Order: sequence, then structure tokens, then C-alpha cells
Amino acid sequence: MTKINENFLLLQAGYLFPEISRRVSAFAVKNPDANIIKLGIGDVTEPLAPAIVEAMHAAVDEMGSKTGVKGYGPELGYDFLIEAIIKNDFKPRGVTLDKSEVFVSDGSKCDTGNFQEIFDKDNVVAVADPVYPVYVDTNVMAGRCGKADQQGRYEGIVYMPCTPDNNFVPELPSQKVDLIYLCYPNNPTGTVATKEQLKVWVDYARQNKAIILFDAAYEAFISDQSIPHSIYEVEGAKEVAVEFRSFSKTAGFTGLRCAFTIVPKELKAYKKDGSIIDVNSIWNRRHCTKFNGASYISQVAAAAVYSEQGKAQIRSTIELYMANAKLIRESLTDLGYKTYGGINAPYVWLKTKDGMTSWQFFDELLERANVVGTPGAGFGSAGEGFFRLSAFGSGDNVAEAMERFKKL
Amino acid sequence: MTKINENFLLLQAGYLFPEISRRVSAFAVKNPDANIIKLGIGDVTEPLAPAIVEAMHAAVDEMGSKTGVKGYGPELGYDFLIEAIIKNDFKPRGVTLDKSEVFVSDGSKCDTGNFQEIFDKDNVVAVADPVYPVYVDTNVMAGRCGKADQQGRYEGIVYMPCTPDNNFVPELPSQKVDLIYLCYPNNPTGTVATKEQLKVWVDYARQNKAIILFDAAYEAFISDQSIPHSIYEVEGAKEVAVEFRSFSKTAGFTGLRCAFTIVPKELKAYKKDGSIIDVNSIWNRRHCTKFNGASYISQVAAAAVYSEQGKAQIRSTIELYMANAKLIRESLTDLGYKTYGGINAPYVWLKTKDGMTSWQFFDELLERANVVGTPGAGFGSAGEGFFRLSAFGSGDNVAEAMERFKKL
Repeated sequence: MTKINENFLLLQAGYLFPEISRRVSAFAVKNPDANIIKLGIGDVTEPLAPAIVEAMHAAVDEMGSKTGVKGYGPELGYDFLIEAIIKNDFKPRGVTLDKSEVFVSDGSKCDTGNFQEIFDKDNVVAVADPVYPVYVDTNVMAGRCGKADQQGRYEGIVYMPCTPDNNFVPELPSQKVDLIYLCYPNNPTGTVATKEQLKVWVDYARQNKAIILFDAAYEAFISDQSIPHSIYEVEGAKEVAVEFRSFSKTAGFTGLRCAFTIVPKELKAYKKDGSIIDVNSIWNRRHCTKFNGASYISQVAAAAVYSEQGKAQIRSTIELYMANAKLIRESLTDLGYKTYGGINAPYVWLKTKDGMTSWQFFDELLERANVVGTPGAGFGSAGEGFFRLSAFGSGDNVAEAMERFKKL
Repeated sequence: MTKINENFLLLQAGYLFPEISRRVSAFAVKNPDANIIKLGIGDVTEPLAPAIVEAMHAAVDEMGSKTGVKGYGPELGYDFLIEAIIKNDFKPRGVTLDKSEVFVSDGSKCDTGNFQEIFDKDNVVAVADPVYPVYVDTNVMAGRCGKADQQGRYEGIVYMPCTPDNNFVPELPSQKVDLIYLCYPNNPTGTVATKEQLKVWVDYARQNKAIILFDAAYEAFISDQSIPHSIYEVEGAKEVAVEFRSFSKTAGFTGLRCAFTIVPKELKAYKKDGSIIDVNSIWNRRHCTKFNGASYISQVAAAAVYSEQGKAQIRSTIELYMANAKLIRESLTDLGYKTYGGINAPYVWLKTKDGMTSWQFFDELLERANVVGTPGAGFGSAGEGFFRLSAFGSGDNVAEAMERFKKL
């Protein structure tokens, strides 16, 4: 008799975005003429940059030629991409990496979801609240927690509230934790952590032999010079942190699929008897056994992100999105909303008025302004009473959405 | 203290192909002038078909245009591809599928490696011997077995020998098993299973509430009309089987990455208390949580495989590879080798002579003929004394390799 992994049955109904889709579809059916503006899911809307398109055409021609066709690539990624990553993303910030520390993949959702696999079931997981649901759900599947309570918090997971009171950077937990998920610039709140704030976590991890799983998918949106782009800018972080990076938001690759994960050679985990295990070689074994490399065309496209033209072109798209973020932030502030984020990240996190819940605000915004956002409560109980607006979209759409907010 | 998943420490050193690479590199360093012909790893060598290249160019242009750019696609895959798969691969063989039963992914290595995750740790896994190492290694990582013995067989895994005596289709195991990995046309032996042979397994699974994980990555190479391309051609298989398919070998997508998995709605697993669980919805949850869709460009490319031009073009490439297989098979037979496979699959499985071990044969072939193949023992202890030659390669290279065999 084939027994199911019953941990999957602990998962709560519906990932956040399918529920949003369901409500939007139901509304659209009832209101076929409504011009719905979607500032909900964090998906890019601008086309890929010309330098990337040009590189992909060349890669397609290679794949169609006898001498250029590429079969299985290296599971860890092509050297031409890994070298460009190290040279452009890390070296200028004082971070030295070896090629064997960079693992190219088809997406950060996969990487952040899969990484926990190489750790024992009996590690205590800590997540920020609100949080990107993938961190939690994949640990539920792996059996690291019990049932969810009425607020949706799973037994055994340590939730660390991120609120205006702590500037959306969690305080150190009172109980010992082993695997700590941090995401800065943060999804969903759009806020950032300073080097000093990250150092508190790196020091904690070093003292407690814990590991930080650091999601830096939005680093390209940082405008403030003092904010670190990589956790490895903090001294000692290589001993205790994995870093996830993605081309999805940086260069609009959500439909193209390419990302990478940094696993330093210095990073150590432990056997139950306390002996030291090198994490890089374990992840290498996992990656090579369960993954067969990212598409050659996506890797060529990713390398073009680092060309001079590519850099300039993606910068102008990011500026477009960040102009949207500024408009959202300023418009809402003018309307008396308290807002956070939107300066170093493409998300604005707003506090609802009059004690309205996140989903009440979602429904009202959809029905009265035909604007879709993301209810903060969907990211965790500390997100209740908050709401996320995404800056991905055309300037016109965002401006129109702000006009409708004014009329609410 | 972050505890490692100690199951990873049970894995034996080196996946097969890295060890082959190591020996080949060492030989090449010592013999820089040797013209090494590689018939080892099962990687395609012909360029992508013109119809696929044309479709990809169009998709690249879409991604670079304001109106055509695609962000996140549906996690399960685009309807245009899923509909083409159902219409072309299954309907003509009498298999009806719903769109929700097809899960598009970036590769069968991922799918065959990941699928076991949704089942409980305490299922008994059965694999053929010899076997594609990914099935075993991913179950080791998941903790479904103990240590490996001297022959490399993990405690708790049921190995089912596939030898000339049973025509390379395993007999039913004497002990009860829950998860059964079958691969036909078979990698590595190149042999096939008839409908009657598969029916024995489907009946076993139905009687024992077991699940068959059926890898059909090589179905496009079947030339014999009577051999089933899908396990669902066997009555009742939808209740007990998952099927893995790939564009990798069918259409040369090893560097492009696109595959799919069929999970019928009828497929059931069980809770420990015996109650029934629908596997399709559990895999759906897993797929949507840990995967973000295959590249749009790869999916457009895959859809082009089913165009009239695409079909004709990939057929001629497959015929080229199968002409190689025929040449290998016939040449080796003439030289007195006993050979198997190579008629409905791009692999020829040969018995070494004079009691030579697989690795002895590997070394001798490399050193004396400068030809690389794959030692059968690398696929399991029942593969000892056998050797795999791949038909992927240019006709000239294969002919040259056969000339060298004659001089051995």
C-alpha cells in the first residue's frame, strides 16, 4: 500500500495567489466591463531588454547549428555566467567567491523551496512574519512542524513578527533556532535591513551554529548606498549564510527562468554527534542528482544582463518600476495612509484605515476601485491590517490606480 | 546547531558520469593527441530541428515586445503545450487525458527525482537492476534505506535483476513493495516491455495498492508497432501509474529543458489509516509550491515538436540515431559480442567477453580504441559484465568507433 506523505495534508487550503485569482475571476465574471488594474502578484510587466533579446537570438541559432548545439550543460551552470556573476554582483562589493560556490538554477522559488532538504527534519525553523509562503510550506511538506492554528501558524515553526515597531527587521528569538529565513529587500513589506541589523543575525548564527537562508531576490532595487546587496558584505557571513539571487525581478526573467544560489565553502552544518559537515558539497550532490542545469538560452540571456548595454537597459526598467513605487508611496501618504517600503524595493506596504482587515480592504479595493493588491494577512498573521501594492506595471496603470484610490 | 540530513552521507561516492569524466580527462591529459569518441553519456548531438528554431526566434521576439512579453506562466504549463501533448502523444494511442493531469516541467531528472517526496518515508521502493541512478539516490536522500553493501545495494531497497534470462523485464518481487520504478524503453539496456509484460505489473500494483513510476523518456525511439508507448495503453494503469515523458531525447532538448509528467485523477495513495488520498492534487500542490513553470521559450519550442514540420524533422533525427544503433548492434554481433537493445531505444547493451568486468572493459576500450562507453556495473550490480554504448553521435563517429572495435 502506497502511503502518502501526510505532512502535505497539514498544508492549509490554497496558496495565497490562487485565492486572489479566484476572487478576481469571480468579480470579472460579474463585472465584464470593469477595467481591472493588477498590482497584486509581483510579476514584471516590461519586455526583456534588447541586449538580452539579441543574445537569445544568437543562442537559438547556436542550438540550431551542428557546431553550436548544446546538450546537457554543467549542472552548476556555465562558467561564462558564473564568472559574470562573481565579477559583477560580488567583487565590486568586496565579496570574493570561488566558481564552485555559485549554483545556477531555473528559479529562486525552487532554490528556496529545495534547500531545506539537505538538513535534518529536527531543526527548528524561524521565519519572519509576514513571510513569502514558500519558506513555510516547504518546511511543512518536509515534516518540520505540526498543525496550523487558527491564525495559520504552524506548531513548531518560530514566527518572528516584523512590524513598524521593529522597522520590519525581526528581533532575535528567545528560543534557539537552527534555520533562519531572512529576505531583504523584503517581500512583502518592501523594507530593507542595514548592515548593522544583518550583523546581529550573523553574530547570532555564528554563536548558535545556526544557518541563515538569505533571499536577496530584490537586491537590484536598492537605491540607498548604505544598504548591503549581499549578506556576505557582513563579516563572518560566509560561515553561516546561503544567499539566493534571481534574474526574475532584476531583469524580468519570470517567464524565462534563471537564478542562482551562493553556498560558501566556509559554510558548515553538523552531524548529530556534533562533527562538522561541509554544506557546499552536500548541496552540490543534491543539485547534480535532482537537477539537470538551467536552459542554455536562459543562461546566455542572464550573461547578457551583465553586458554594458544590458546593465544600462535593465537599470532603466528598474527606474521605471521605482518611479511607480514612488508615485504609489507619495499618493497614499497624501491620502493619509501610513506606508512602508517602496524606496529600495518594488513593493509598498500600507496600513489599512479604520481597523479594516487585509481581506476586507482587498474586497473593497477590487469592488470600488477595480484595483487588485495583495492582502497582508496572506503572508502571515503579523501582516493582518496591512496590504501590499506592487510597483510592477505600466506608469499609466499605476497613475490610474492612484486616481481611483483618491476617489475611494 | 544546524543538523545535516544524514541520509545524504549514505550516498556512495560519485554519481556514475563524473567518474567516467574523471577517467576520460586523466586519459586525455596523458594522451593529448588521442581522438576520443564518446558513446558514453546519453546526450544528443544533432542540432535542434529548424521548425523548433523558428518557433524559438518568434518566442524571443515576443519576450522582447511590450505586448508579447510573458511573465510567470501557469506552474503546470501553458495550455497550448498541454493540449498538443494530449492530442499527439496520447489520443492516437487511445489514451484520454484531462489537461489537469499533465504537469509540464524543466526535465525528467527533476520529476523522477522529486516525485517520491509526496510519499511517506516508510514505503518500500523497488527498482530494476541495472537502473538509472537518480531513482535510487533520491530515495536514499529521503531516508528510505540504510547503508549500501559492497555491491552498492542499499539496505531496504528491493532490487529486481534484469538479465537476458528474463528479457530485461523484472519478475514480480517476492516481498510486498509500494513504489515501483520502471523504465521502458529501458535506460541503460535499450530493451522494451510488451503490453502483456506491463500488464503483469499493473495488475500487481492494483492488487497491492502499489504505485508504478513509469519513465517513458525514450518512447519516441520505439519502432516495433506492438510495443506500447505509454503505460496507460494497459487497462487499469491510470489507477496505479505516473508516467514521465521528456523532450530531451525525443527532440534534442537536453540543453533546452522541457519535460512533462502525467498524474491521472484516478491515481490513489493512502493514509496510514487506510483512507484514500488523491495523488493528482498532492502533486499539484507540490509542483505549484516548489516550481515556477518551465521557460516560455522552451514550452514554445516543445509545442513546435508537434507541428507537421517539427514531427517530420525530429523523425529524421531519430532515424539517424537509430541507424547508428543498428550499425553498433550489427558490428558487435559480427565481432561475436552478445548484444541487446538498440532496436526500440538508442542504447545497445553488450555482454563483455572472457569474464571481463564492466570497468575493465571501459578502461581497455578507452586505452586501446579511444572510445568511451558506460560500464554496466555503474547502473547496478546486475549490470556487471555488461556495457552500454549510446547511439547518440554522428554517423561518421559511430562508424569510426566500430572500425576501432574490429581492431581490438
